[in-house]
Amino acid sequence: MSLLVVGSVALDTIQTPAGEVEEVLGGSATYFSFSARFFNKPHVVAVVGDDFPKEYVNLMNQHGVNLDGLEFEGGKTFRWSGVYPMDFGDPETLNTELNVFMDFNPKLPESYRDSKYIFLANIDPELQLDVLNQVDEPAIIGADTMNYWIENRRKELLTLLKKIDILFLNELEARMLTGEENLLRAARSIIALGPKHLILKRGQYGVMMLGENSFFVTPAYFLERVVDPTGAGDSFAGAFMGHLARKKKIDDNTYRQAVVYGAITASFTVEDFSVNKLVSIGTNDIESRLALFTQFTECRFP
Amino acid sequence: MSLLVVGSVALDTIQTPAGEVEEVLGGSATYFSFSARFFNKPHVVAVVGDDFPKEYVNLMNQHGVNLDGLEFEGGKTFRWSGVYPMDFGDPETLNTELNVFMDFNPKLPESYRDSKYIFLANIDPELQLDVLNQVDEPAIIGADTMNYWIENRRKELLTLLKKIDILFLNELEARMLTGEENLLRAARSIIALGPKHLILKRGQYGVMMLGENSFFVTPAYFLERVVDPTGAGDSFAGAFMGHLARKKKIDDNTYRQAVVYGAITASFTVEDFSVNKLVSIGTNDIESRLALFTQFTECRFP
Repeated sequence: MSLLVVGSVALDTIQTPAGEVEEVLGGSATYFSFSARFFNKPHVVAVVGDDFPKEYVNLMNQHGVNLDGLEFEGGKTFRWSGVYPMDFGDPETLNTELNVFMDFNPKLPESYRDSKYIFLANIDPELQLDVLNQVDEPAIIGADTMNYWIENRRKELLTLLKKIDILFLNELEARMLTGEENLLRAARSIIALGPKHLILKRGQYGVMMLGENSFFVTPAYFLERVVDPTGAGDSFAGAFMGHLARKKKIDDNTYRQAVVYGAITASFTVEDFSVNKLVSIGTNDIESRLALFTQFTECRFP
Repeated sequence: MSLLVVGSVALDTIQTPAGEVEEVLGGSATYFSFSARFFNKPHVVAVVGDDFPKEYVNLMNQHGVNLDGLEFEGGKTFRWSGVYPMDFGDPETLNTELNVFMDFNPKLPESYRDSKYIFLANIDPELQLDVLNQVDEPAIIGADTMNYWIENRRKELLTLLKKIDILFLNELEARMLTGEENLLRAARSIIALGPKHLILKRGQYGVMMLGENSFFVTPAYFLERVVDPTGAGDSFAGAFMGHLARKKKIDDNTYRQAVVYGAITASFTVEDFSVNKLVSIGTNDIESRLALFTQFTECRFP
């Protein structure tokens, strides 16, 4: 089943307590794809400028990312720079240059229109809706968003929520969207808005998933050394959607597995800058870490 | 096997986003005991003043708490008042009146000296050490502490750490004690200081336990309504130590079970002020919530 992601491909300049990098490969569609590839072939819809390094295009191709939907526009590639605090919490944005991303108007190549598994990364909800109109018969639609759209595109976002299967949010976003401080009540309110599943991303504390008839909570994989949290959420979504896309039969346990694969894959992402760690591992590394994770979370009752 | 707790019995005045109460039954030994009682009979060493309400003494007696070690001194009972922020995070202390607790010098009644399971709640490490000297042959010793002792009684605390089996800390305390920001590295450093197990309490995010040859992570039980987080940590410790004390054979899985029972029991504590919820439930309620928790955290891999 074909797996589609619409989002950003960017050049990131990042400082964390573990070091700093300049103009490295980043963006939501990038992190999604480099994680999803362990599970199912990702197809990218995004835009870059004519300054986008050829080596990054090659890197994506070499790692099985389909780039038929990557537009090259005259102008500069989207750039973001940020600095993370000592506790690797939310970064402070130093600079955002939207550049060619400002006029991003995603057009699906003909070959993408029969995609079944769709991930709408964090872009304007109006564009997310527009993408959905270009897909023939989607099977499962996931979407991300952020505080800016919750505040400034509320109407469009609420329309989108009625059309999607899975919403990925962090705790702050869930509270903003619902006005509920308690996360379980916030999650219930979100399900009432349309999505069949809410994935609540809690960073180093793990993930909570609420569905119409299911509830799942899992801790994150503990790391001895974090280098850069950038892209953790999109990596999570990539592995999550990729796991669903490779399964013939999808039930509640498949969703739970997808959450755990998401958390495991994201734990690799944050161990290095950019996609450096993700390109250095294989499926066996993910399975090994999953085995450890199972051991670390197991508790038997008679 | 007899279960001993040394700590405070107090009168708390508390404001939370869910309401407020005045001079209600509180204190570390109290919360510990009202949780431990579901698992094993708790024996309390503490001090109160002559103003301590008779009804609270009766309440403790009625709920199976042994008070042979509760001293009644002339003077006023220890009082604490605090206010919790909107997110039920760390409270701001409005007032602390140590009163009779200031000169607390725990003396074990003869009948307590053969206690096997010992919990040293958060008091001066010097007093914690003194209590240990009064126990004949302890089997398992747990201890709590706080930022004040880490800063001001470091030497005594380090001596204590060499003598105990289990240290209970929150994330901030683990970082303060070790100077390590990363919690896994902090936990390893703490094990190197002496305790066989570190229990890292992460509030609404659950618990991590590190032992010499074991590692366990679990989320907390999600609640739709929190009323008052006071006593959650001591309730956790009460159920944890109580579960160990009722088991004949203690292995790694017993420790994991103890963590889960601790988290489940603490989830009841925070649903009401003081021990109100804890006195309104029975063992069956704990087992029912455990069954739900198991369901909420289960994920099967082939």
